[in-house]
Amino acid sequence: MAAKLKRSPLAPEGFPSLPEIGGVSFATAAAGVRYGGRTDVMLARLAPGTAIAGVFTRSATRSSAVLDCQKKIAFHSEAGAAIVVNSGNANAFTGRHGEEALRAITTTVAETLGVPETRVFTSSTGVIGEKLPHERITARLAELRDSLSSGAIEAAARAIMTTDTFAKGAGAEIEIDGQPVRISGIAKGSGMIAPDMATMLVYIFTDAAIEQPILQTLVSALNATTFNCITVDGDTSTSDTLLVAATGASGIRVTEHSMAFMEGLRRVMLDLAQQVVRDGEGATKFVTVSVTGASSDADARTHALSIANSPLVKTAIAGEDPNWGRVVMAVGKSGAPADRDTLAIWFGDIPVARDGWVSPDYREEDAARYMKQPEITIHVDLGLGGGQAMVWTCDLTHGYIDINADYRS
Amino acid sequence: MAAKLKRSPLAPEGFPSLPEIGGVSFATAAAGVRYGGRTDVMLARLAPGTAIAGVFTRSATRSSAVLDCQKKIAFHSEAGAAIVVNSGNANAFTGRHGEEALRAITTTVAETLGVPETRVFTSSTGVIGEKLPHERITARLAELRDSLSSGAIEAAARAIMTTDTFAKGAGAEIEIDGQPVRISGIAKGSGMIAPDMATMLVYIFTDAAIEQPILQTLVSALNATTFNCITVDGDTSTSDTLLVAATGASGIRVTEHSMAFMEGLRRVMLDLAQQVVRDGEGATKFVTVSVTGASSDADARTHALSIANSPLVKTAIAGEDPNWGRVVMAVGKSGAPADRDTLAIWFGDIPVARDGWVSPDYREEDAARYMKQPEITIHVDLGLGGGQAMVWTCDLTHGYIDINADYRS
Repeated sequence: MAAKLKRSPLAPEGFPSLPEIGGVSFATAAAGVRYGGRTDVMLARLAPGTAIAGVFTRSATRSSAVLDCQKKIAFHSEAGAAIVVNSGNANAFTGRHGEEALRAITTTVAETLGVPETRVFTSSTGVIGEKLPHERITARLAELRDSLSSGAIEAAARAIMTTDTFAKGAGAEIEIDGQPVRISGIAKGSGMIAPDMATMLVYIFTDAAIEQPILQTLVSALNATTFNCITVDGDTSTSDTLLVAATGASGIRVTEHSMAFMEGLRRVMLDLAQQVVRDGEGATKFVTVSVTGASSDADARTHALSIANSPLVKTAIAGEDPNWGRVVMAVGKSGAPADRDTLAIWFGDIPVARDGWVSPDYREEDAARYMKQPEITIHVDLGLGGGQAMVWTCDLTHGYIDINADYRS
Repeated sequence: MAAKLKRSPLAPEGFPSLPEIGGVSFATAAAGVRYGGRTDVMLARLAPGTAIAGVFTRSATRSSAVLDCQKKIAFHSEAGAAIVVNSGNANAFTGRHGEEALRAITTTVAETLGVPETRVFTSSTGVIGEKLPHERITARLAELRDSLSSGAIEAAARAIMTTDTFAKGAGAEIEIDGQPVRISGIAKGSGMIAPDMATMLVYIFTDAAIEQPILQTLVSALNATTFNCITVDGDTSTSDTLLVAATGASGIRVTEHSMAFMEGLRRVMLDLAQQVVRDGEGATKFVTVSVTGASSDADARTHALSIANSPLVKTAIAGEDPNWGRVVMAVGKSGAPADRDTLAIWFGDIPVARDGWVSPDYREEDAARYMKQPEITIHVDLGLGGGQAMVWTCDLTHGYIDINADYRS
């Protein structure tokens, strides 16, 4: 493992104080899967009756753990459940060894916690193509079970880090019918040294009582405007996993009509998603790309991602260069409809271009000053229709090259 | 303009000796469009009867020059023709000023050379969104006309460079019915400092006699496996232009059945396309990505471009890291069909992965040694069908960040 990375300049001040969620407890261990001197296994136990929903990578080469979670996610059960995550090894592209390692872990977790194997969800993150030393994990499970604690969510967030430069957490307390409902979540992404994929893992817990199909619908819908709207480098992991567990411990029933819960969950998901971007490899700028006036929302998203993934746009931002020509280029290449003569661009509040040319009162020194900020907004209006989208990304810097061109030794 | 870039380590030894093409003459001038102390305008005069075919960027924000060429390209005429190209300013996203500048140039070229305006093709490359000082170009046209020379193709290649680190030329002499036919071409791409888009401009000349519709069909078809198969950073220019002019001066008639001509033209196009990659911004490795066994050729191309454009693959190559997990990732995310368990990967001749895991006799030290070479081949077989594709790219290095994060001052 290479040298320790400096904490991202875009990181929050510290790990937030998160509400404890009844029905969830956490334990961590230093199992030495790959890393030394740090925790690398996280176990979460979920009370009987917990509903679990999930969203997973659509990669055609996704890992055994992801395939296994996908099989289990819609399976109805009132039994207790468990989530077990290791860092250091992604157990991806490891052929039948991958299935065997997965099975060894899920069987042992099920036996140790007394839950059905169909209710054991696992993730693995880290190097791919190497055999997961699963016995190092299973050997620690009894100890993990005995140290489960409802207050250990920050430790859990640390155990799932690979080369993240800070632990990521977000929470919300909302009121439903005057009663408190709590949401707490953790995420990892998107650093890598050891390497490999810039994997994103997210676990969110709530004490709301909610039926699994409703929770799944909600999570899938909210995912579309949160985690699915972030990009660091356009590369998609083999392991991306988002699990949301609702224990029901608050006794408050949430239905598909609960706007307060939906908004609370959305806020937690968006916060965690943006923290992943803030820890993007080598990132020095947090960038919001907002597209309006497209022919459809889907077209707006295509344009926004084309801008957010453009190496030329991202390097210009790294160089604090208000190089709006590259935004024009990214819109032009995206494949979605655009008309040069109705296109308008703003950097923050500064009108940069409109009607197919630079804005008449644009002064480059204003834009250059704006680009020096750590948080940048690029807004594009296509002047074609009502479609809109917003995505978040970071700049492309020497730090990214340092991290990713570093030889695995 | 920023400091002069070092010649690419992947550059050929020097500009090749190209066959002169009857019916074509070149002239260049230092018009001071943006750069000082170098030529920045190129004029090519084409004899009456020349057939001209072209392929252009599909960007929705393409430049006035591209739009104008597209309008003119299929227009039949036996009159003489001209190609005029300036570097330093792309005349893109400049609203009605762009059309005015274009019109001023094409009118003056037409008058000066005595050719119809519909036979004047222009390209502009360089900074976008800034008004093109067209009067600096038109003021030099009489002088350019008076210095036209059939041997000045290398000077022409130099005048169209922006931040290319070497002038690009390629040629072929073929025999048709025992008679010589010549092809000579020049290209620019894909450097930038000043900046902007990594524009690619290509001009190829031949003394073959060929009807325009046949030439156009041929050029479009060959473009699909040459210039359309290279990528430096996945960003698409607003100005990409490829023009092929057949003067007929050899007296040799070429039809759609002439395999020798087709192969000669393909060789010149591929050579120029690969030279563009060899001058990719910051490139230190020339990379061939070959995909076989896909469900269709289109799917193979999707996978190949996903690998070639992946920042994680490109940085691994820069770091001489045989990180085949990133190739698996890029195949998985491409969106085209893939099956983890039939996937096989080679680095050069070294079998790296097969049947969903690392190859049994893979030794990382062999692959690591292979990655130190300046020319790398990544071969992926999907094991699904007969679809195949080949694309060329370069690595992603600190040099790319240096060039593109550099502020335009």
